Amino acid sequence: MSGDGDFGLLSPVSASPAVAALTSDRAVVAAILDVEVAWASVLDEAGLVPAGSAAVVAQAADDGAFDVASIAERAQGGANPVIPLLADLRLRVKELDASAMAAVHTSLTSQDVLDSALMLLARRVVSALLVEVRSTTTALAALAEEHAETLCVGRSLTQHALPYTFGLKAAQWFHGVAAAGRRLESLQLPVQFGGAGGTLASGTVLTEGSSSNPFALADDLAAKLGLADVPAPWHTSRLAVTSLGDALASLTDSFGKIAADLLFLSRPEVAELGEPLAAGRGVSSAMPQKQNPVLSVLIRSAALQAPGLAAQLHLAAANFNDERPDGAWHSEWQAMRGLLRLALGAAIQLRQLAEGLRVFPEAMRRNLDISGPLLLSEAVVSSLAPLLGADRGEAKARLQAVVDETLQATAAEQPRIYTKLLREAVPPSKLSDEELTALLDPANYLGEAVEISRRILAAYPEFSHPNPKGADRG
Amino acid sequence: MSGDGDFGLLSPVSASPAVAALTSDRAVVAAILDVEVAWASVLDEAGLVPAGSAAVVAQAADDGAFDVASIAERAQGGANPVIPLLADLRLRVKELDASAMAAVHTSLTSQDVLDSALMLLARRVVSALLVEVRSTTTALAALAEEHAETLCVGRSLTQHALPYTFGLKAAQWFHGVAAAGRRLESLQLPVQFGGAGGTLASGTVLTEGSSSNPFALADDLAAKLGLADVPAPWHTSRLAVTSLGDALASLTDSFGKIAADLLFLSRPEVAELGEPLAAGRGVSSAMPQKQNPVLSVLIRSAALQAPGLAAQLHLAAANFNDERPDGAWHSEWQAMRGLLRLALGAAIQLRQLAEGLRVFPEAMRRNLDISGPLLLSEAVVSSLAPLLGADRGEAKARLQAVVDETLQATAAEQPRIYTKLLREAVPPSKLSDEELTALLDPANYLGEAVEISRRILAAYPEFSHPNPKGADRG
Amino acid sequence: MSGDGDFGLLSPVSASPAVAALTSDRAVVAAILDVEVAWASVLDEAGLVPAGSAAVVAQAADDGAFDVASIAERAQGGANPVIPLLADLRLRVKELDASAMAAVHTSLTSQDVLDSALMLLARRVVSALLVEVRSTTTALAALAEEHAETLCVGRSLTQHALPYTFGLKAAQWFHGVAAAGRRLESLQLPVQFGGAGGTLASGTVLTEGSSSNPFALADDLAAKLGLADVPAPWHTSRLAVTSLGDALASLTDSFGKIAADLLFLSRPEVAELGEPLAAGRGVSSAMPQKQNPVLSVLIRSAALQAPGLAAQLHLAAANFNDERPDGAWHSEWQAMRGLLRLALGAAIQLRQLAEGLRVFPEAMRRNLDISGPLLLSEAVVSSLAPLLGADRGEAKARLQAVVDETLQATAAEQPRIYTKLLREAVPPSKLSDEELTALLDPANYLGEAVEISRRILAAYPEFSHPNPKGADRG
Amino acid sequence: MSGDGDFGLLSPVSASPAVAALTSDRAVVAAILDVEVAWASVLDEAGLVPAGSAAVVAQAADDGAFDVASIAERAQGGANPVIPLLADLRLRVKELDASAMAAVHTSLTSQDVLDSALMLLARRVVSALLVEVRSTTTALAALAEEHAETLCVGRSLTQHALPYTFGLKAAQWFHGVAAAGRRLESLQLPVQFGGAGGTLASGTVLTEGSSSNPFALADDLAAKLGLADVPAPWHTSRLAVTSLGDALASLTDSFGKIAADLLFLSRPEVAELGEPLAAGRGVSSAMPQKQNPVLSVLIRSAALQAPGLAAQLHLAAANFNDERPDGAWHSEWQAMRGLLRLALGAAIQLRQLAEGLRVFPEAMRRNLDISGPLLLSEAVVSSLAPLLGADRGEAKARLQAVVDETLQATAAEQPRIYTKLLREAVPPSKLSDEELTALLDPANYLGEAVEISRRILAAYPEFSHPNPKGADRG
Repeated sequence: MSGDGDFGLLSPVSASPAVAALTSDRAVVAAILDVEVAWASVLDEAGLVPAGSAAVVAQAADDGAFDVASIAERAQGGANPVIPLLADLRLRVKELDASAMAAVHTSLTSQDVLDSALMLLARRVVSALLVEVRSTTTALAALAEEHAETLCVGRSLTQHALPYTFGLKAAQWFHGVAAAGRRLESLQLPVQFGGAGGTLASGTVLTEGSSSNPFALADDLAAKLGLADVPAPWHTSRLAVTSLGDALASLTDSFGKIAADLLFLSRPEVAELGEPLAAGRGVSSAMPQKQNPVLSVLIRSAALQAPGLAAQLHLAAANFNDERPDGAWHSEWQAMRGLLRLALGAAIQLRQLAEGLRVFPEAMRRNLDISGPLLLSEAVVSSLAPLLGADRGEAKARLQAVVDETLQATAAEQPRIYTKLLREAVPPSKLSDEELTALLDPANYLGEAVEISRRILAAYPEFSHPNPKGADRG
Repeated sequence: MSGDGDFGLLSPVSASPAVAALTSDRAVVAAILDVEVAWASVLDEAGLVPAGSAAVVAQAADDGAFDVASIAERAQGGANPVIPLLADLRLRVKELDASAMAAVHTSLTSQDVLDSALMLLARRVVSALLVEVRSTTTALAALAEEHAETLCVGRSLTQHALPYTFGLKAAQWFHGVAAAGRRLESLQLPVQFGGAGGTLASGTVLTEGSSSNPFALADDLAAKLGLADVPAPWHTSRLAVTSLGDALASLTDSFGKIAADLLFLSRPEVAELGEPLAAGRGVSSAMPQKQNPVLSVLIRSAALQAPGLAAQLHLAAANFNDERPDGAWHSEWQAMRGLLRLALGAAIQLRQLAEGLRVFPEAMRRNLDISGPLLLSEAVVSSLAPLLGADRGEAKARLQAVVDETLQATAAEQPRIYTKLLREAVPPSKLSDEELTALLDPANYLGEAVEISRRILAAYPEFSHPNPKGADRG
Repeated sequence: MSGDGDFGLLSPVSASPAVAALTSDRAVVAAILDVEVAWASVLDEAGLVPAGSAAVVAQAADDGAFDVASIAERAQGGANPVIPLLADLRLRVKELDASAMAAVHTSLTSQDVLDSALMLLARRVVSALLVEVRSTTTALAALAEEHAETLCVGRSLTQHALPYTFGLKAAQWFHGVAAAGRRLESLQLPVQFGGAGGTLASGTVLTEGSSSNPFALADDLAAKLGLADVPAPWHTSRLAVTSLGDALASLTDSFGKIAADLLFLSRPEVAELGEPLAAGRGVSSAMPQKQNPVLSVLIRSAALQAPGLAAQLHLAAANFNDERPDGAWHSEWQAMRGLLRLALGAAIQLRQLAEGLRVFPEAMRRNLDISGPLLLSEAVVSSLAPLLGADRGEAKARLQAVVDETLQATAAEQPRIYTKLLREAVPPSKLSDEELTALLDPANYLGEAVEISRRILAAYPEFSHPNPKGADRG
Repeated sequence: MSGDGDFGLLSPVSASPAVAALTSDRAVVAAILDVEVAWASVLDEAGLVPAGSAAVVAQAADDGAFDVASIAERAQGGANPVIPLLADLRLRVKELDASAMAAVHTSLTSQDVLDSALMLLARRVVSALLVEVRSTTTALAALAEEHAETLCVGRSLTQHALPYTFGLKAAQWFHGVAAAGRRLESLQLPVQFGGAGGTLASGTVLTEGSSSNPFALADDLAAKLGLADVPAPWHTSRLAVTSLGDALASLTDSFGKIAADLLFLSRPEVAELGEPLAAGRGVSSAMPQKQNPVLSVLIRSAALQAPGLAAQLHLAAANFNDERPDGAWHSEWQAMRGLLRLALGAAIQLRQLAEGLRVFPEAMRRNLDISGPLLLSEAVVSSLAPLLGADRGEAKARLQAVVDETLQATAAEQPRIYTKLLREAVPPSKLSDEELTALLDPANYLGEAVEISRRILAAYPEFSHPNPKGADRG
């Protein structure tokens, strides 16, 4: 039986026990049961069901006792897994104490339970995600500070653009992850309670004559599950679902950017960075010498998949017809879980990557020197054009001609030729040899690299220097 | 030449002059020029360029004087439209006053300008969008209040579920649009300024010795353009772009849900709602009698397209390698503008729809009566099961058997048979005829429909009863 | 352990044992082992490994003996599942006969094995799919023939357009499925063999001095696996993969069209069709009377998901850099399997739907009569305009005015009024009462409905009247 | 007015006059008019309209005389552009000869015209595309032959894998483009004719008593337009549309793979390839020395966008409800044109790239030598393991240990150390120094690189050595 399940064989990025524990079919079953148990408890505390029912339901709702594969298969009958799971739960409650059956699912509908359960599952994954993200951003912030002065080359459309620092690169990676992390953390993950048609009709009948009402029950349920309370049912307005998807895709976007950089910077021809080494990681089935950057490869594979899944959630939202739709809701579930899995799996890999990243400043310098003084041509123009006469346009044209002539030479010759041509273009009376040398030193043209890094880290204090106690909202 | 342009021929949802004025290629050119003019003004005010330069640049930057088609074609050379546009702008400035050329684009890079310009264009479209959205939500809120007691049927997976009100349906439509509108309104649309490599190197040189610095210049530029200021360049962290896309898709999601409902509810077999009539709208090229719900059709066409475009922005973000990427940035632009167009076009159509919607309560009642008392079977179970003996499970099974027997009859016979079987199942001593009749009256099983509507409108006061003065942020 | 797997809980459309047997992680492991076993056999038969090795490998490769969950987890190390699976296989072979290890994976690389294995898995699923598709098209063809004369209304943009037949509707459903089925059947699912770098270097060394060569080995492997042979390795050209995805999405497109129609036509207000009844199907967790069209709902949920997955495969193909890519390949696997699952799951549901569809001709006629003679207005114009004078434009305008006046009346009154106004517009001398009645009879304006249906069925003989013996290519 | 059009400003990849001429709104108008003119001609030749009508319609249908922007705006009324365009055409025909109006659009419906017109537009674009593709494949085939022996390194997951040839790399690029080109060329682009409801009812009336019938008219129309004829209307079965989209995305997939390789291989650190130089191409707005690979950048931007657009077409197909759908059809048009534009624009850029590609064999060799003999470790294992004793597993482990020890050294030291350790591991009696040197020469481990290239070119003779006369199907 177990052999017919999926264990992540075709999704290595998320094939870890940590991810499985939070997102497997059993985790879904557990979340559904958690919702039903919390609801029984709400009803019990409100005096709407026989006293003690909640405890009976809780006892019956041992997720290990449910046959997940059987529930999945029987879900075809009603098009959702809540219905067969409830049948099993009711049988178990009945065996323990039939009177407690009044506390099972009363006044709820399948969508109430599944929406709430998936939000609960999302909350758990998001909590775990944020722990990984904070470890990652802490590591990236440390790299930014450690390498604040480490020279490298800034690249644009694949070509060398300007001198840069590895610290700023790490800070910009941090920027992406921290901004996406903050957005994820600010998400409201709401409870759902509307009853069969979304009018709370059954709940109204149930609470008639009591001191409660359906809205209060919903708030109690939210509190018990750690979900956000809401003013009203949102069964046809899926913004909570799409916002979760968008936030997760935004997070993997920020991961993907880092992976893309890593995959280039760790190539043998570049060799500025290296993934952390670990036994058994990066191996090939055919080539003994291979050390593949598998963390980055897997992170990239996740980042390439997330946008489509987030779009799936929007597409479902746009097709949510009637009071319960005719297929759109059913197309949401796998996409939402898929996003949670990819994000958490990739976050774990990225944390390992960030914490163990190998940095090779000398390679950064070597690559910077490939372009040499040509890299300073923007600075040259702004510094030297004023020295070349009143006609700024003409001066710029002369300096561009110097560049163009330089580019005719071989790459190896260009640094020398560029320096020579500049020396010829500007008389030493206007620019001493020392001044020319300083002008062509990349370390002198870093602009605000240090200050930009500092500002980025300062803008996200909870991610650059997080308080570990606050890291897990779960 | 003009004939080779696009005027929305294949996108009727957005083919209106109002949309074109805000999103055409000329509007993009105008936004780029606005950024360059604002920048010249920032430099002029900071004393970094010859005094008066800004006025010259502003005079030169008359967007009507630029050949959009030519700029578009020449954009292939540098892979973005800023470069050829700048060439034209510089020529015009030079003719007016060559010294003012120092104020054109100094210390900026193409991405600074295009990112800022597209954010500016987005801000303008979002302002117009919110005006449409507020008119729509105001109309939907009025429908919710007017029809608070108008009975209809709630539908689930296409089938009749429970009694409902049209007021609640309108309130839930409002819910979706208002929530998405609030999110859109809360967006930060930031300025971009990082210079060629993202280090502000050129800006640092420029401001050396002055009382300013590059960060202050960026804040000034943001203020002049009405964009959000930022602590640092965000050139490789595209959350601002994807958040805009996500918010727009969320808005069209909420539109699509309404359109899907309308398209069903205005069918001849259902006829509960009708699109507003207008001369020339809804015509067919072949069938004289056709009155097509074209507003809904076009809104739906937009809602089906938006998710894919939003995903495109995430995909670009996830591929934003290096300090400037090698294709990802270039794949953002059409998707972002496409989303703005679809959203604004659909918003205009939806506003017309909401403001002129024709509501047919008698058809709602007629359709409700198709299911008749069977629609109350949930209420029947919860009310009658306790009267049928101590064994709740057995009682429920008996009532389910009544339903199952009823469903064997023809649809037309079911109401009578269900009532008769219920009468037989419960003795009059426990349930009088009057009580049974009341139990089977759909108007008595609306739960909290009125209160849910009230709560939804109250949760979004700025959309249910907006202050017109605050409607346009532009 | 098994509890941490997935069993389709959140994808009811494909949560059946039949789908699991062909697509589960264990099925993937089995396919990988089948490739390794076939390869050992190829090498053994070519005399390139110790005689008898193949039998040893085959004995070791009992898929039931492999721990799928463990392989999945260990796949993170090398970023693909082949590597840990091979480690386990080699251990088992070594225990049986160490000399046979020479036949395991020799000259192959992971991508050779996984590409071939997924093609093998695809072939198996496609075979099963085509069996379902043929049963479906046979049932649809029978409906088309049985209901060739069953009148209904043709609908366009949700409104009544022209008289139609249910037979033609069924024939057009058939059209979509048969065309997509034919495309699926014509797919080439190729073997992959390129060796570590795609040069067949290791295979060249291996076959040196033998009578074989690497291309011949590849052809032998293809023959053993029932895959298509290819002139050369295709490791970076993913057309075979995207074509499979496109064909599967095309199939679910055709399913989705049918589901969309069914979901409307089985609504209580329309009631022209009904899903087949089955115990336990269509139930609700809250409403005893509900009979949800769950087959259509689930089919629609699949059709909404497939396009995004097919796009994922194209996206991977477009990013297949180098001789083996850095994440794109890894983003293919789940999407491809997801498509296979959705297509097969939906195909099974659709077959049930098509074979047991309940058709209600009287409801079709009742709905047709809602529009009554107005539905013939196109025919009226073409027939009567010539009778109204020489000026065709003026005549058309008069007949349009009749329609417009009619549309002012209530829906119930329109048939009578339209007939009366037409009678007044054309003198009986030009059109007798009998002729007018005939003109307004929908059965007289069916055009080529019967012939179109016949032509469609005739165009796909292998799907309209398939030879069962040829149904399974497997 | 013209300024409000789009000229490709935000889509530089396709902003060329050649693309605009074939795909602009005016080109769509022209295609629609071509369909109406061809239809008038069909009716005229069949004697179904006043003789000479066709010539009048043709004279009226001068596409330059139509106001595209006005038609686009008026398209909102009926949700498609055919309706307002027909109004304008009828006015023009009426002015010339009112009797010829009988030949305009008679028995057609909007979808007949727009589907046929877009297929016609597609046919024209595909013809132009295939010309570009053939020039590209011819150039790639020439590179494959010229560089059949040019050594480079094969890369896998970003790391050096095995010796490779640039000829094989070019052959694999060819492989991708030629396979996708062949598929594109084999597409059936069909005519559409079904009439208002898809029953050919009006056409049946029209041809009554004549020697023709609607199917014959459809075939005549197809022949006049150069489109494929079909057995029956396909208005709700969109396989022809999705197949076009899939083929176009497959083509840009193959382009994207090449662009991704180019963007890496032309980086300064790698420098194995260079884009063709051209005045004004590759410039930056800020950095005088930049030579951006803009052809590759733009091609990549197209490849990133195409998959989402192809998915849009499938999504529309899956939602094609009723006899004409309620929004799905309307969501097809921009996506289809978008794909045609991206593909043609990118094809033009790729052709320039392929025809002018600069190849630097010495850089290829230099990069190959970074890994040095370690690159031969697969060959080393297969050659030396048999010399190290009977226990193959133990031998492999020893050779793996040699690799592992080598990897402890700095990159620069690794070649020397690996050679030394190997020399120590195998006695000269079993492997002479000469043999060891030969074993470690990458030129000796190219496998079937030459033969694979030859086979690939031979498999697509119409793309490797096309007959120019057959290149343009248009």
